Amino acid sequence: MDDKEISQAVIGRLPRYFRYLGELKDNGVERISSSDLSILMKVTASQIRQDLNNFGGFGQQGYGYNVNFLYSEIAKILGIDKEHRLIVIGAGNLGQALSNYDNFRKRGFIFKGVFDANPELIGKTIGNLTIQSMDNIGSYIKKNNIDIAVLSIPKAAAKGVSEVLIANGIKAIWNFAHLDIDAPPGVVVENVHLSDSLMKLSYRVNYLKNQEDS
Amino acid sequence: MDDKEISQAVIGRLPRYFRYLGELKDNGVERISSSDLSILMKVTASQIRQDLNNFGGFGQQGYGYNVNFLYSEIAKILGIDKEHRLIVIGAGNLGQALSNYDNFRKRGFIFKGVFDANPELIGKTIGNLTIQSMDNIGSYIKKNNIDIAVLSIPKAAAKGVSEVLIANGIKAIWNFAHLDIDAPPGVVVENVHLSDSLMKLSYRVNYLKNQEDS
Repeated sequence: MDDKEISQAVIGRLPRYFRYLGELKDNGVERISSSDLSILMKVTASQIRQDLNNFGGFGQQGYGYNVNFLYSEIAKILGIDKEHRLIVIGAGNLGQALSNYDNFRKRGFIFKGVFDANPELIGKTIGNLTIQSMDNIGSYIKKNNIDIAVLSIPKAAAKGVSEVLIANGIKAIWNFAHLDIDAPPGVVVENVHLSDSLMKLSYRVNYLKNQEDS
Repeated sequence: MDDKEISQAVIGRLPRYFRYLGELKDNGVERISSSDLSILMKVTASQIRQDLNNFGGFGQQGYGYNVNFLYSEIAKILGIDKEHRLIVIGAGNLGQALSNYDNFRKRGFIFKGVFDANPELIGKTIGNLTIQSMDNIGSYIKKNNIDIAVLSIPKAAAKGVSEVLIANGIKAIWNFAHLDIDAPPGVVVENVHLSDSLMKLSYRVNYLKNQEDS
């Protein structure tokens, strides 16, 4: 496959294809036409064909898509055919929720360690992980070949912590802190701003109410 | 302001404007030009002007934007000038994290109740909320004028629970269950698929590695 740059919009849609194909696979469906997939996913068949053509197509005229094949090809594209090794920084409720989440483990995202700056939390356990002090994080990252760090810490600490992580070789940050993290070239950041999502919902509730009132 | 339909892309960017303006406000900044805001937010000044023009502009030639005014106008557009009353369904780690999150409260999202189907959890407390049985959820929603329900439950339960919520008058669902919820007209759903976000990050890690290897 060509390693050309794919648009963010397409990449953003791939996990959803993967999710629907996973369900079809679990239900024993072996092949599906782009029009049936289109009905299921509520996007146009032409969008599906266009999206998948970015990666070489996968469909066959008159046959449709082989569900298993497409599922595993998308897994490869998403890089989840290999295991990822993660650490969580911030052992609060959210950090605990993320490090315990079965769905991630199933997709090959293995949580190896949890860190916190609060001395009262250090030594406590979350599932089978012991909360560790931030003091040794640099050597831990290197020794354990960690590739993704999850930031579930307050905004004020996030910039400093991310600098430490990057200086110690972290190449990917999944950021839940309520600010945008600037990463140098060679480091990728995916921001999850839960407040932003809740505000979008609030906008839509508000819009709906205005429509009903008018 | 006209209540015309605004594109999802613009709405999606509003919370980020709100966040940056809130920080400027906290730092005592009273006005900002679109070009300074553009540098800060790393988007083009023309994008900012276009986005805000959807709501009537707010800027003045040669003056820029009044930070306080723009902040409170965006709050109104987002519907966060009023209080929202939420319940959380699913008192696991994620449900606990969400119902305890200070940032939401500060924005007027008030968590009024937490519900779970697991009898072992009922009666326990999360912060100042007692976990309640799902049995009385219908009357609770009506009595307490709840407008948003947060779903932090497994995929298998999500469809049934959302139907119960909607039948009892819930108009907005913030869905963390790992499936897309279909809502009837008049009900809005905002899906937060954490696995999808993690897979996007994985794609980018993978892409980066392939670049470096080639």
